[in-house]
Amino acid sequence: MSELKNDRFIRALLRQPVDVTPVWMMRQAGRYLPEYRATREKAGNFMQLCQTPELACEVTLQPLERFPLDAAILFSDILTVPDAMGLGLYFEEGEGPRFRKPVRTEADIRALGVPDPEGELRYVMDAVRLIRRELDGRVPLIGFSGSPWTLATYMVEGSSSKDFATIKAMLYDRPQLLHQLLDTTANAVSAYLNAQIAAGAQAVMIFDTWGGALGPREYREFSLAYMTRIISELSREQSGQRIPVIMFTKGGGQALEAMADSGADALGLDWTTDIGQARARVGDRVALQGNLDPAVLYAQPEQIRAEVARVLAAYGHGTGHVFNLGHGIHPQIDPAHAAAMITAVHELSRPYHSV
Amino acid sequence: MSELKNDRFIRALLRQPVDVTPVWMMRQAGRYLPEYRATREKAGNFMQLCQTPELACEVTLQPLERFPLDAAILFSDILTVPDAMGLGLYFEEGEGPRFRKPVRTEADIRALGVPDPEGELRYVMDAVRLIRRELDGRVPLIGFSGSPWTLATYMVEGSSSKDFATIKAMLYDRPQLLHQLLDTTANAVSAYLNAQIAAGAQAVMIFDTWGGALGPREYREFSLAYMTRIISELSREQSGQRIPVIMFTKGGGQALEAMADSGADALGLDWTTDIGQARARVGDRVALQGNLDPAVLYAQPEQIRAEVARVLAAYGHGTGHVFNLGHGIHPQIDPAHAAAMITAVHELSRPYHSV
Repeated sequence: MSELKNDRFIRALLRQPVDVTPVWMMRQAGRYLPEYRATREKAGNFMQLCQTPELACEVTLQPLERFPLDAAILFSDILTVPDAMGLGLYFEEGEGPRFRKPVRTEADIRALGVPDPEGELRYVMDAVRLIRRELDGRVPLIGFSGSPWTLATYMVEGSSSKDFATIKAMLYDRPQLLHQLLDTTANAVSAYLNAQIAAGAQAVMIFDTWGGALGPREYREFSLAYMTRIISELSREQSGQRIPVIMFTKGGGQALEAMADSGADALGLDWTTDIGQARARVGDRVALQGNLDPAVLYAQPEQIRAEVARVLAAYGHGTGHVFNLGHGIHPQIDPAHAAAMITAVHELSRPYHSV
Repeated sequence: MSELKNDRFIRALLRQPVDVTPVWMMRQAGRYLPEYRATREKAGNFMQLCQTPELACEVTLQPLERFPLDAAILFSDILTVPDAMGLGLYFEEGEGPRFRKPVRTEADIRALGVPDPEGELRYVMDAVRLIRRELDGRVPLIGFSGSPWTLATYMVEGSSSKDFATIKAMLYDRPQLLHQLLDTTANAVSAYLNAQIAAGAQAVMIFDTWGGALGPREYREFSLAYMTRIISELSREQSGQRIPVIMFTKGGGQALEAMADSGADALGLDWTTDIGQARARVGDRVALQGNLDPAVLYAQPEQIRAEVARVLAAYGHGTGHVFNLGHGIHPQIDPAHAAAMITAVHELSRPYHSV
């Protein structure tokens, strides 16, 4: 494996000095890019795109051709894991993801196995290997997984959900049953992330998209506890390099202190938390990633630049900040607006890293 | 006007001693009740139900016939105000609210007037007067309005929105234009709430459903500032009685300290904030209303009771707590489960109010 030509992203996650603040965007390989839409067209459908390593590699690299991003992220979907557990993932056009066999009963849960990452999920590992080869050390590659709680919401509800009626009824009526599901899912996630690391992922991120739908006690017991366990089970070194872990709970701004004790190297922040206050709360325990409101990219480039300046100023001097949006880039965004943000981060952050 | 036979709700909002914790539910007059569905059927459509004082009164009183609730809330919709401002509200079945004439340009905004609460909105005031007469002092009647920011999201987007693309582009590119819209809307809300108070509302609540979609600085400038101004403009006494004001920003848990300085008597809390920690943060500046996760009502009655006990214990001893859900009751909930919650609040809260 080649040495990294640009290791700002890894250095910032490990709170080592950097020249400028590194930047990448959640969903940077996505529908806002015409070249992505063309590849997806070619693939036929979204799952085919995920399951064909050459195409997954192609879309992973597309945003790097356009923008001076400091990291690549594996193109995949968090629901590949429950799909490999036998739930039968499919996408209805305009309807979001669905499972043919949602998990509801004790028998359903007992029947779940931990998928072999080099078996059912080999297409993901092949994509990781291929992307690493194609990247050739330009920037690091981020691997990822959904959190057990977030995966379980889809597994139990059978689709996206507004109110989480079924899984929350399970949480309150049959907490031990839900714990059993989360335990199996956590085992699957640990194996999956470790396999991504072995295949070449140089950092990993756990996406807890729905942790913010829980009350504070329920969040700690049913989401944070499992992410903490997974982090303790990960291989944190590969070829002598530390593999940083980023934990991101959307809507988790009130739990940052607890999250900072999880063993993660960095916490993702959505835009509803002031990043300066977040830094004061977590101290030097973790780096922070975020947190421009993705809707800022609907504004004109000069306003985008002003808002980037504000986030950089709020974080303040020194390393430990990876610039990102507070959630995925929206499909309607003009790529020129993403470019304005990325350029502004590199240009405006330099004074915060001078000695 | 008759004296209140049950004034627990008002007393708790004013942090005066009570025998048990008062309880009501957001959307307590709603689709989870078969008798509501029957009246709505009779009305023809949702707007007819809002605009016919006899029917609005009928559904307002329905939950009080079933449950020992400590307050009634006017049946209406937050979008009656922009409708009266000439935007042309309509509802597409299964699609949510829409406006025929969304507000986008400077000319659109300059053309907006403040509706006369006893003119275009007289149907609301007539409903308030009728409900007060029919309630005959059983429990207090809550009036309400949407916050200027929340109303503006619908006025600019023209419908519900997931990403608030149009209004956030306006916020960043043309903040003064958005301020002009919010200023006019705040004038409309002040006049509307004062008219409800004059017509008989014994407490008022400002619903800031979408304040949580803003970053912390944007929340203070574009939502909280206008709610604070409205509160300063309200008639806070009527017939010698103090009229308490409740402010509720969904997803506003990180801003409670700032909200406590708004002049509101009470803050609504969604379920993502621990109510005990919230109490410690706001001290004796405001009462708190909330905050059971509405999804707890999918669980069985004994679990509902256990979760009610947990919220009561988290708030702790003494007055200043109005029990509620953290958001509106879901349409799928079994009314027997709502009953279990209400009974549990009254039974289990008594020890917290003993001398």
